[in-house]
Amino acid sequence: MVNQFVDGEWVTDYDPTNEEGEFERQPTTFRDRVGSEDAEAGRYHLYVSYACPWAHRTLVTRQLLGLEDSITVDVVDPYRDDDGWQFTPEKDKCTPDTVNGFDYLREAYVEADPEYTGRVSVPVFWDKQEDTIVNNESREIMRNLTDVFADEVGNGVDLVPDELRDDVDEVLDAIYEPINNGVYRTGFAEKQAAYDEVVTELFDALDHWDSVLADQRYLVGDRLTEADIAMYTTLVRFDEVYHTHFMCNHQFIREYDNLWPYLRDLYQTRGFGETTHMDHIKEHYYTTHPDVSPKRIVPMGPDPDFEADHDRDSLAGEPPV
Amino acid sequence: MVNQFVDGEWVTDYDPTNEEGEFERQPTTFRDRVGSEDAEAGRYHLYVSYACPWAHRTLVTRQLLGLEDSITVDVVDPYRDDDGWQFTPEKDKCTPDTVNGFDYLREAYVEADPEYTGRVSVPVFWDKQEDTIVNNESREIMRNLTDVFADEVGNGVDLVPDELRDDVDEVLDAIYEPINNGVYRTGFAEKQAAYDEVVTELFDALDHWDSVLADQRYLVGDRLTEADIAMYTTLVRFDEVYHTHFMCNHQFIREYDNLWPYLRDLYQTRGFGETTHMDHIKEHYYTTHPDVSPKRIVPMGPDPDFEADHDRDSLAGEPPV
Repeated sequence: MVNQFVDGEWVTDYDPTNEEGEFERQPTTFRDRVGSEDAEAGRYHLYVSYACPWAHRTLVTRQLLGLEDSITVDVVDPYRDDDGWQFTPEKDKCTPDTVNGFDYLREAYVEADPEYTGRVSVPVFWDKQEDTIVNNESREIMRNLTDVFADEVGNGVDLVPDELRDDVDEVLDAIYEPINNGVYRTGFAEKQAAYDEVVTELFDALDHWDSVLADQRYLVGDRLTEADIAMYTTLVRFDEVYHTHFMCNHQFIREYDNLWPYLRDLYQTRGFGETTHMDHIKEHYYTTHPDVSPKRIVPMGPDPDFEADHDRDSLAGEPPV
Repeated sequence: MVNQFVDGEWVTDYDPTNEEGEFERQPTTFRDRVGSEDAEAGRYHLYVSYACPWAHRTLVTRQLLGLEDSITVDVVDPYRDDDGWQFTPEKDKCTPDTVNGFDYLREAYVEADPEYTGRVSVPVFWDKQEDTIVNNESREIMRNLTDVFADEVGNGVDLVPDELRDDVDEVLDAIYEPINNGVYRTGFAEKQAAYDEVVTELFDALDHWDSVLADQRYLVGDRLTEADIAMYTTLVRFDEVYHTHFMCNHQFIREYDNLWPYLRDLYQTRGFGETTHMDHIKEHYYTTHPDVSPKRIVPMGPDPDFEADHDRDSLAGEPPV
């Protein structure tokens, strides 16, 4: 069950699962792009949750591209109830809505489109000048930051070099369904057959990328790209959340020969570990999905040592910043 | 929520959790004991579930004491719904009620006491001659089999030697609340504070026994006793069920230096592995507690290799049979 706007009305028991018991993620709807001529420092804003892997992608990208001073950020409460994401500045690491002063993120969606239909999700890339949502699709926001903002108002780092663009897009496509969305499809599956199919797909994909990473430092070779960011925000949540909460419990990431050192390598790279807030992550998942974890207890959990040596720097390539 | 008799009436939404959100196990109520003069082959019967760790204790004991031909066994369906444990002989490894022909185990409780108040649990130690329940407390049934049946109608093996009796009882007491019952108290805790307290107690106890087992093969030294049986039936369910289902996810048993080889040692000892049916175990827990796992999905899970070498035979002591 999720909460969302249906024909402009806020509905609190929308069911995103089909008759086969399969979770079907709804498409995002704001899909605009900021051009070079408009990419000014201070004009754009990110609404994020530290808990959300999609929002987390944009935070890592923002750091890697040196956009901390150019793009502002507000952080919602990790706990999401029937009213959806909300601003609770009194809670640790949460902020008020410094742009619009809203109490609920859904107000930003209605501000952008009074007849809005769909989910109220993070990240939201907001244009302070036009008072509207530019985009709420993490992959497109990442690319917009990389292609436009890095050069205009950032440090010029390139997370999608021209010669690797097709490779990056291919990996982003390849990991989305089985891994990034796969953990959700596993956890929200409502029939045994649906679960069995998607959990197998998930671990087959993890096995595949584990073997790819035996000989190369990053997903497309020796350059850290957007593909690594997209993989990271799922992997870093895996052992402490998806393994138990979403029943992705066949294997831990820290049991993989290459994915585990790869994850530690990224965690220790500027922009990754510092944007990873496990307290928000754990609180969000375990307390926000009563149809999965009805007691809303945050478990003790394993405590993977993301700071441990990884030895990945013996492979070709190095962090971009 | 459990189902049980309250003042002779079958109630399907009884709540065993107190105001602090702590799970409180109700005491068992049939606490009789068969004396040497009555311990005949063929007269007594065990109603068990392969899923249940308490019932499992009696099955291991029965095998170790060579009572397979003296005490008969019926096996209930691992799935327990509002009607409680039931007999579904059409399902794999399940049996009919060969003694009374009942469809539901609760009928045996009513047969023994028409005004019965309390839970309908396994194991049930049944007297075919008197048509009644002798005992439904696993620890007392184990001890009755050891003290009386082993010599009268079994192989004479002693699972509680006189000189170790106090030690065995001490260990049985020591592991009950934090470990055997601790996994349930962890999984059924309904408030964060209750969970935090009991899960810490559980892992502190596991740490303690892990260190004890560094230098000795069994819990009380070099003799396999009832204490090992009681520990085994919890440990063997831990990684595949309690870790995920009951959020005992701080550490796997297979991550412990000594508990894990100890568990494999027992698994490979006659009476242990052969009474361990992981299919019934997983089906039971994941599909029977909607207040914990509402989607009733049986997860892929880890697949611990219980058959792997353990090297514990370098320590003093050997299996009893």
